[in-house]
Amino acid sequence: MSAVTTDPAGRTGVPAEVLRARAYLLRVAEPPCREVVDFVRTHGPVEAADRIRRGEVSGPLAERVRARRAYDRAEADLEAAHAAGARLLVPEDDGWPAWPFTAFGTRGALERNELAPPVALWVRGARSLSDLCDLAVSVVGSRAATGYGTHAAAELGSVLAGAGVTVNSGAAFGIDAAAHRGALAAGGPTLAVLACGPDRAYPAAHETLLERIAAAGAVVSEYAPGAVPARHRFLVRNRLLAAMGGGCVVVEAGARSGSQRTASDARALGRPVMAVPGPVTSAMSVGCHELVRAGAELVGRPEHVLETIGRLGVDLAAEPARPRRPTDGLDPAVAAVHDALPARAAWPVDRLTEEAGLPAGIVRAALVELEERGLAEYVHGLWQRPGTEPVSARGGA
Amino acid sequence: MSAVTTDPAGRTGVPAEVLRARAYLLRVAEPPCREVVDFVRTHGPVEAADRIRRGEVSGPLAERVRARRAYDRAEADLEAAHAAGARLLVPEDDGWPAWPFTAFGTRGALERNELAPPVALWVRGARSLSDLCDLAVSVVGSRAATGYGTHAAAELGSVLAGAGVTVNSGAAFGIDAAAHRGALAAGGPTLAVLACGPDRAYPAAHETLLERIAAAGAVVSEYAPGAVPARHRFLVRNRLLAAMGGGCVVVEAGARSGSQRTASDARALGRPVMAVPGPVTSAMSVGCHELVRAGAELVGRPEHVLETIGRLGVDLAAEPARPRRPTDGLDPAVAAVHDALPARAAWPVDRLTEEAGLPAGIVRAALVELEERGLAEYVHGLWQRPGTEPVSARGGA
Repeated sequence: MSAVTTDPAGRTGVPAEVLRARAYLLRVAEPPCREVVDFVRTHGPVEAADRIRRGEVSGPLAERVRARRAYDRAEADLEAAHAAGARLLVPEDDGWPAWPFTAFGTRGALERNELAPPVALWVRGARSLSDLCDLAVSVVGSRAATGYGTHAAAELGSVLAGAGVTVNSGAAFGIDAAAHRGALAAGGPTLAVLACGPDRAYPAAHETLLERIAAAGAVVSEYAPGAVPARHRFLVRNRLLAAMGGGCVVVEAGARSGSQRTASDARALGRPVMAVPGPVTSAMSVGCHELVRAGAELVGRPEHVLETIGRLGVDLAAEPARPRRPTDGLDPAVAAVHDALPARAAWPVDRLTEEAGLPAGIVRAALVELEERGLAEYVHGLWQRPGTEPVSARGGA
Repeated sequence: MSAVTTDPAGRTGVPAEVLRARAYLLRVAEPPCREVVDFVRTHGPVEAADRIRRGEVSGPLAERVRARRAYDRAEADLEAAHAAGARLLVPEDDGWPAWPFTAFGTRGALERNELAPPVALWVRGARSLSDLCDLAVSVVGSRAATGYGTHAAAELGSVLAGAGVTVNSGAAFGIDAAAHRGALAAGGPTLAVLACGPDRAYPAAHETLLERIAAAGAVVSEYAPGAVPARHRFLVRNRLLAAMGGGCVVVEAGARSGSQRTASDARALGRPVMAVPGPVTSAMSVGCHELVRAGAELVGRPEHVLETIGRLGVDLAAEPARPRRPTDGLDPAVAAVHDALPARAAWPVDRLTEEAGLPAGIVRAALVELEERGLAEYVHGLWQRPGTEPVSARGGA
């Protein structure tokens, strides 16, 4: 009964009966299921599974498990996962990403069954999920992305992964794939959360991409090997995507978009929601703009994301490069005196005072400041712009 | 002494001595000059002008007017303006836009000399400036605008003017000109605030545009006929542009931009600041994105501006059009049952319950809801998708 399993990564430690129990519990009710989660919290996974299997449950939990409680495929699922290079990661494992799911226990989330935490996770990839989620951001967006959107997502993925931030996404076409690819191109960590079994490539065209993601980070799912990507599972999956990032960035989204659902899950879980703007003429940016109008943070550069989710104080975004002019930052009065300086002549203070329409005291102080900045020269009792050639107006020397 | 003037629009009412006094006061210190404004408030324009002319002033005011107090060009300015089809609009005139400048008296503004109100305004155009400013918005942005920016500005100008909102801008190249032209194309009101005399076309290429703006709305300036557009005057002008709109929209702005100065003036005057986003890859949108990050409202459609500055409740922006699917808005459990319905068969409730992994009670309730929405059919004791052809799984009928 206390046999210890060896996972594909060669790590040990979790009793096989716990893995079998959680594999069973993951299937016994369609996730998310707060009743199962609560029952496991009370009785532990092994006893909880036994009781459910034996029908020793009542109330809403009994309702939730009635249809499948006799349907135990735990052993077969574990074998199929092993064959596909996947393992079952359970909360009893050191590699379980604990902090991402603590948010599911917060008050706002507790009231919503949709935000129940996972009972376990099927994982492809040898890296520790806990480590991967330590500094991670979810990048999501439309499948029907534009060239602009895929460029922005790839850039974001690349800069974030390059800074050591795990880029989480859903492995879909469009923004998801661009974010994963950007991260992979930077040689950085990336994580895909699927709405189907961990052994399935969905979409099929992304089979190689998913392999690369598993090698560089992890491919994660609540669904057992062989499970099909039913549509409601994408919505359910989005809550994991939202939870497993320290923030959620929407890159492109139409007016109606699953990404907005992920963003709303992220908000409910207390994760900062960010959105990348785009042309107001693009239907694919409408959803992002609506998010910003609703309070999401506008992300103009990848550094803005680092600033929000990253190591504050270390990853502060640099100020955007501003072309500097020598007259930048001048007080308006000083700028007025600079404007009054003639282009090809030299004038006395009185003349400049009249031209600038300012008090002589202010003009004198301004001229001293301009001289210090190299913007005015005082030559033979007259003021001029630096380098002005001597002309008749200057008078005798 | 109580001669009454006739302005180019044929209106009368303001004593000529008041016009002369304010024309003098407008020149005697370079605007903005809070000392002159306060002195006029205490003594009235005629006495204030007389005292300044006679040197019967002291303190900071004396300093501000010393250089130009003997330089009285009031008569000549009024004549030059008349010849150029312009008039001097003074606070004593019914057409004076009173509300835009009340903000200059608020606490935040009072402390800043740069936000002193104008002593008078030179105006080209027969329409009442007060009426024009009644519902107005300032649209500003970069001279070096992109095609995207000019398109967005023209669209904004056109929709706003078409809704009866006066489009204020600065008649510069780029965003300014596009906003004016959009308003003119919609046959709506538009207003230009210049940094030079009202008789000057600056830039020269906009001579015809300025004529059209004067005919459809107004061309306004604090600077006397003939005054050149010195650089500091653009900054000073921006405060009028900010004040004369009920809100300020920045369409495109680089990281360093005069538009950001206008936006900061607008904020100081209590006007809502809005910004149009653009591609994060465009240097011309960096300033807009920084404004939104600093708290400006993101404007995705012209209706958003109407909603903010317009007749609230009347101009509320419609929700963006969202493509609707029949399964939109379904509760996740109902969506899960819908997903479980087979594509080409009919199933009993038990089978659907197992497939969906949900309690039978929830599945039955979901099936009723799906039936009501036309998303499921109950035929001969089995559930199917509507229009499913009879197949063997259905059993005998």
